[in-house]
Amino acid sequence: MYDIILKKRLGHELSRDEIKFFVDGFTLGAIPDYQMSALLMAICFNSMTDKETVELTYAMADSGDKLDLVKHGIYACDKHSTGGVGDKTSLIVAPIVASCGVKIAKMSGRGLGHTGGTIDKLESIRGYKTELDVSEFLSIVEDVGVSIIGQTGNMAPADKKIYALRDVTATVDSIPLIASSVMSKKIAAGAKTIVLDVKAGSGAFMQDTESARVLAQKMVSIGKGCQRNVAALVTDMDVPLGKCVGNSLEVIEAIAVLRGEEKGELSELCIELSSLMLSLSLGIDRDAARERALTAVSDGSAFNKFVEWIKAQGGNEGWAYNTDLFPKAKYHAEVLSLSDGWIKRMNTQEIGRASLTLGAGRRTKDDDIDFAAGLVVEKKTGDRVKRGDLLATLYSNDFESLAVAKEIYLNSVEFSKESVERPRLIYDIVI
Amino acid sequence: MYDIILKKRLGHELSRDEIKFFVDGFTLGAIPDYQMSALLMAICFNSMTDKETVELTYAMADSGDKLDLVKHGIYACDKHSTGGVGDKTSLIVAPIVASCGVKIAKMSGRGLGHTGGTIDKLESIRGYKTELDVSEFLSIVEDVGVSIIGQTGNMAPADKKIYALRDVTATVDSIPLIASSVMSKKIAAGAKTIVLDVKAGSGAFMQDTESARVLAQKMVSIGKGCQRNVAALVTDMDVPLGKCVGNSLEVIEAIAVLRGEEKGELSELCIELSSLMLSLSLGIDRDAARERALTAVSDGSAFNKFVEWIKAQGGNEGWAYNTDLFPKAKYHAEVLSLSDGWIKRMNTQEIGRASLTLGAGRRTKDDDIDFAAGLVVEKKTGDRVKRGDLLATLYSNDFESLAVAKEIYLNSVEFSKESVERPRLIYDIVI
Repeated sequence: MYDIILKKRLGHELSRDEIKFFVDGFTLGAIPDYQMSALLMAICFNSMTDKETVELTYAMADSGDKLDLVKHGIYACDKHSTGGVGDKTSLIVAPIVASCGVKIAKMSGRGLGHTGGTIDKLESIRGYKTELDVSEFLSIVEDVGVSIIGQTGNMAPADKKIYALRDVTATVDSIPLIASSVMSKKIAAGAKTIVLDVKAGSGAFMQDTESARVLAQKMVSIGKGCQRNVAALVTDMDVPLGKCVGNSLEVIEAIAVLRGEEKGELSELCIELSSLMLSLSLGIDRDAARERALTAVSDGSAFNKFVEWIKAQGGNEGWAYNTDLFPKAKYHAEVLSLSDGWIKRMNTQEIGRASLTLGAGRRTKDDDIDFAAGLVVEKKTGDRVKRGDLLATLYSNDFESLAVAKEIYLNSVEFSKESVERPRLIYDIVI
Repeated sequence: MYDIILKKRLGHELSRDEIKFFVDGFTLGAIPDYQMSALLMAICFNSMTDKETVELTYAMADSGDKLDLVKHGIYACDKHSTGGVGDKTSLIVAPIVASCGVKIAKMSGRGLGHTGGTIDKLESIRGYKTELDVSEFLSIVEDVGVSIIGQTGNMAPADKKIYALRDVTATVDSIPLIASSVMSKKIAAGAKTIVLDVKAGSGAFMQDTESARVLAQKMVSIGKGCQRNVAALVTDMDVPLGKCVGNSLEVIEAIAVLRGEEKGELSELCIELSSLMLSLSLGIDRDAARERALTAVSDGSAFNKFVEWIKAQGGNEGWAYNTDLFPKAKYHAEVLSLSDGWIKRMNTQEIGRASLTLGAGRRTKDDDIDFAAGLVVEKKTGDRVKRGDLLATLYSNDFESLAVAKEIYLNSVEFSKESVERPRLIYDIVI
């Protein structure tokens, strides 16, 4: 291990065997934390070549259970977002793509943050079961075409252990380490095709577009190195995505998009992601794929697929037909503008913090989530606003949190006296 | 700690409080190894400013017991060598300087390597006690003017713990970390004046003169930052120093130099080091200091001081008058040249390894040392050699080791058909 650390410190490329040696050794506890953290820091400074990053990804994917969907005859498509505020695209994209004949077999995490993860959002639908065993999961994918469950078994334990160490040693923000961490889980989850949504902006891990693009390129190149069909969009997270931030609030918004009732940026991004997934999976051009995705929404087949899926996983499909059945938060508060002008900037991370304050997310892994808590954004960057206009509505079952979240929300919005352009939704596509 | 690691990773200067925080926290066990090793790796990449290095040195010196000689009314001079093969200068310099009225209160380590440390060499004189308590030590310094003992108490434990971690995380070779490690022990040992001998070449830690010069400058600047009188010589270690490598062999050679019987490079370097120590301690110019050092040897006062010192520490001073009393190794072997020509290069580290093989040093800290083992170098770089000429004589109490050491020795010497210049002895002086 000493020689491996020194080699990386001196800027040389590590071999497959060396990478496998430290990943396996660390996972088994044979290599101590202090050597691993020294190596991680050296990687932060000297980076990793594409070849090294592919090997690291393979080694981490191989460190635990793996699902080989292709071996089960399932040519599934997976989708991953690097995360952002109001990002509920999986809930919309999965049934659109499945209704067009492409299988979606997705495992998703919970995690800490401004809202729950995709799994928590789905659990806000009464009865929806996220803990299925692999055979149930595969049979739903086979029959319905789509299933999303919580991460099962012991997948990529090396990544989990390495990530925990990075988190306390200031070695998180390294492109090859981030990219291999994401991709190792995707590779272990077994889909043949993977579409990535890499977010850039104040609400994203990557604050600037250029870093997000570099990360996207690295992940795509790893995916290809691991023999997957893979592509990425680089998209905006400088404003919240869509209007709703929360758990059931986001499910309700997703349903509205699937029913064709809600147009706008969220819908547009979901169509773009779906097109890319369909085009890669079916080998058709993106315009044709886009047509199919749009039709799936307009003819109701995407919404019907959503209902079928929720039902297959034990959820109450009646809630999809009537979203008034979702429990409401006891309290709400309106955030009114104190200024006249145009919204110049929204600190989207702070808007996420307002959501967390309202109870929509977890601070520690044992926290309970308030499914009904969250916020609905009414005005966004570029919008003209008058003093007294409604900027957002906050929802919570904790009355005290409303005032705190309101303060956070107001401080997160900057105004300008001159008109401001709305940021672009899609910055780039990496194929 | 996370913030400190990140700050260093981003290349910012750490404050005194931050440095004290991680040194104390790590020494007490409150900061885990894996965070410390990440920080050390970040320091290897982003280095430390002089200000940071001084603070690190102070913090490590303050982490355990300290001896404040000045408080005891002793204005002593200390000397440190970064180490090399055949370096017995402390044994010669200490009595020269003490005989000129400057106190020498030196604590010295044992360590692993090609021979024992200064302390082991002194123990090859029957009766010499290296484990004195501080009051005995100080009273010998007071009365005789010189004492050298083993490191006592719990000095600079932070350095010890950090060094152990660096040793297994490929973070040893960083100039600020090396410099602060050496200087923290010197500062804790309490002398007002410190002279450093920084070695460069194939037998030294720093292989090239330029790195050695940079290290010397860093250590001098730390010493000054810590309010000490300090200077350094950058000297050659591309050939062994003097003729003898071993423990009693080196003591015998040191005695010959002190008696004025042995001239040459070893003697010359000792006079240079002594001049620097006298000039800094007494505030006189270096030419005057050099005169005093030369006189101390030629009029016998340096040798008499050596005898007085050895006696004060319990050693049999008769051995100084008659070095035939030192026990001899049972076996010896001659290394004869297989080539004609000039010696072009000596791999001095390999010559050290030959000495270790003969039993003169320790491989692990529990190894016993064979005081009589070692080698005497007869021909050096630049010397003209004929086939069959004696290159060196090897000594050991382990017969089998002689053949192995002979092989190593022969392989360490390179020959040229053209004449070769002897390397310079002193490359630089840093004041």
